[in-house]
Amino acid sequence: MSQIVSIDVRLFHIPLVEVLVDAKHGDHHFFELITATVHLKDGTSGTGYTYTGGKGGHAIAAMITHDLTPFLIGQSADDIGALYDGMQWHVHYVARGGIASFAISAIDIALWDLRGKRTGQPLWKMAGGAAKTCKAYCGGIDLGFPLPKLLDSIKSYLDRGFNGVKIKIGQPTLEEDIARIKAVRDLIGPDITFMVDANYSMSVEQAITAANAFKPFNLTWFEEPTIPDEYAGYAKISAATGMPLAMGENLHTIHEFEYAFAQSNLSFIQPDASNCGGITGFLQVAERAEKAGVPICSHGMQELHVSLVAGQKNAGWIEVHSFPIDAYTTRPLLVENHLAVAPDVAGIGVTFNWQKLDAANILES
Amino acid sequence: MSQIVSIDVRLFHIPLVEVLVDAKHGDHHFFELITATVHLKDGTSGTGYTYTGGKGGHAIAAMITHDLTPFLIGQSADDIGALYDGMQWHVHYVARGGIASFAISAIDIALWDLRGKRTGQPLWKMAGGAAKTCKAYCGGIDLGFPLPKLLDSIKSYLDRGFNGVKIKIGQPTLEEDIARIKAVRDLIGPDITFMVDANYSMSVEQAITAANAFKPFNLTWFEEPTIPDEYAGYAKISAATGMPLAMGENLHTIHEFEYAFAQSNLSFIQPDASNCGGITGFLQVAERAEKAGVPICSHGMQELHVSLVAGQKNAGWIEVHSFPIDAYTTRPLLVENHLAVAPDVAGIGVTFNWQKLDAANILES
Ligand SMILES: [Mg+2]
Ligand SMILES: [Mg+2]
Repeated sequence: MSQIVSIDVRLFHIPLVEVLVDAKHGDHHFFELITATVHLKDGTSGTGYTYTGGKGGHAIAAMITHDLTPFLIGQSADDIGALYDGMQWHVHYVARGGIASFAISAIDIALWDLRGKRTGQPLWKMAGGAAKTCKAYCGGIDLGFPLPKLLDSIKSYLDRGFNGVKIKIGQPTLEEDIARIKAVRDLIGPDITFMVDANYSMSVEQAITAANAFKPFNLTWFEEPTIPDEYAGYAKISAATGMPLAMGENLHTIHEFEYAFAQSNLSFIQPDASNCGGITGFLQVAERAEKAGVPICSHGMQELHVSLVAGQKNAGWIEVHSFPIDAYTTRPLLVENHLAVAPDVAGIGVTFNWQKLDAANILES
Repeated sequence: MSQIVSIDVRLFHIPLVEVLVDAKHGDHHFFELITATVHLKDGTSGTGYTYTGGKGGHAIAAMITHDLTPFLIGQSADDIGALYDGMQWHVHYVARGGIASFAISAIDIALWDLRGKRTGQPLWKMAGGAAKTCKAYCGGIDLGFPLPKLLDSIKSYLDRGFNGVKIKIGQPTLEEDIARIKAVRDLIGPDITFMVDANYSMSVEQAITAANAFKPFNLTWFEEPTIPDEYAGYAKISAATGMPLAMGENLHTIHEFEYAFAQSNLSFIQPDASNCGGITGFLQVAERAEKAGVPICSHGMQELHVSLVAGQKNAGWIEVHSFPIDAYTTRPLLVENHLAVAPDVAGIGVTFNWQKLDAANILES
């Protein structure tokens, strides 16, 4: 009865209200949303998804359709762990990260949606059950915003009920970054949580100089100062400056996370279930994070991560990202008393508004 | 004049004469060949390619078509290094290995084909020019062959003029692996170069036991004893046994190769230009290999690697793989005096027989 009989894949190009810029990915005009709906023989179905900054969506959809679906059809959806390992080995030669991590994530999330629906459990419970709410901050892709616009956008975060904010850095000069950081801290006062994100645009040496210059502004973390591959470089920055560091959105395999925990001296880890192996991959990282004593945070898709982070004993913050996937669901992210509130329905609690998405569909299902 | 005006992508499923099995990828019924032909404004064109064991081809083709082609159209094909870096950053969020490495490789090889054709240089010269020939061995995907058939296939390698052979290991028991290794060594005598390949099917501890048991048979190397992510595990096996180790076919980024050189104590490195960034990626690895004093070998696509390895001062062996891509070109691999001979024509020297491939084409161009 729990046999997988078919999988629908959809690819959407969702336009952004305005062009967004960061230090390493250039202009974002739209983002890609890839959904995978897994149908079982008993008529039940679950939907998972992943997203990109605008590239790779076709390749992700192609891998789900041509490589993962033939592997999954006919198998029982019950043993998610076995299917997860099976998918990883099935595509291993072209995987170990990259597109495969996104494709497997979408399927894995669909399988957890099915598990929740079939057992009547909400995701925050399945993911650990520590709590139903978690801390949250807003992070904009705002490197290209002139200062007045940057400050307006920070104000809008506070107006929406958040008490944490993050800005992009990586301006042509360090002085400009410092001026923007100072202006934001002056605006928000001493009590609002404040982080910066360089999108790995700096060398280790540049990041050390920058981190020292940022010290007066009481930053909760300095995110991705340098490329994610430079595990030991992170530890050098940390040792030289004492600045708390965060990364994770560009780590895709459990091995990469293990290297980061062992070598990078991170203060926060930020996996993204859309690209680290879905909920199974996220929970594997969460387990290592607890052992390492590192609070677990998240990158992107706040409507899902609210449940995954809330469920952890060592929960950090979820990022409320500027790709508004939650605006295309029946329950946009809920914030109460500065905390994000996990949905309390069976399944992952993310139900797409297909009608609203339809206009953005660029593949036949 | 050197402006890129269009790129043709083709995907072929090429049937194998028989089903081939290794320790980690299961059955191979066919392999995938993905070609990319880059056309310039002046009417010249170059063709590159990549391949897989049967999964990922659609995703690779999709990434070339939807992500890399829009980035490349209109750019000059002359500065390959800049285009290579540009492609890596263009898809970075969904890359750092995986499908993107294969897609970028195909394009990069096409750009080198163009460079060779436009400047009148053969690949072995562009790749360093050290020599026009290199050592070669035959490696079969022969884990499933009963012993008599295994020995027949080894004999056929020697009959074809090769003086090096490699077999797959990873039988249900170590005793079976040892029996097959002993039988092959008895057949070929003491002077033929002989390697084994576990396709990372062992733990570090199992590999240590196996390597010690393999000592009487004078193996030139033990390939991929354990997963490629276990950089330090390789050094442990090497330290505990003194067995020469080789890997590289599953490393995709220059960072991964740098970790392997720094941590794994490899005796041989085996990049595959089809998945480590094409010729640009291969030459980056070759440069590190020379610095590390590690002979540079190769995995797969012998018809191209013969030029890349022959060109290096610290050349090792090319693998003559059981995916016969060269059978679909106008010049199958040439062997003289046990040495593989690089083509001496302008470009990469790999010209596809499109008519022969046509029957296997599964995408419209
Ligand atoms: Mg970030
Ligand atoms: Mg091998």
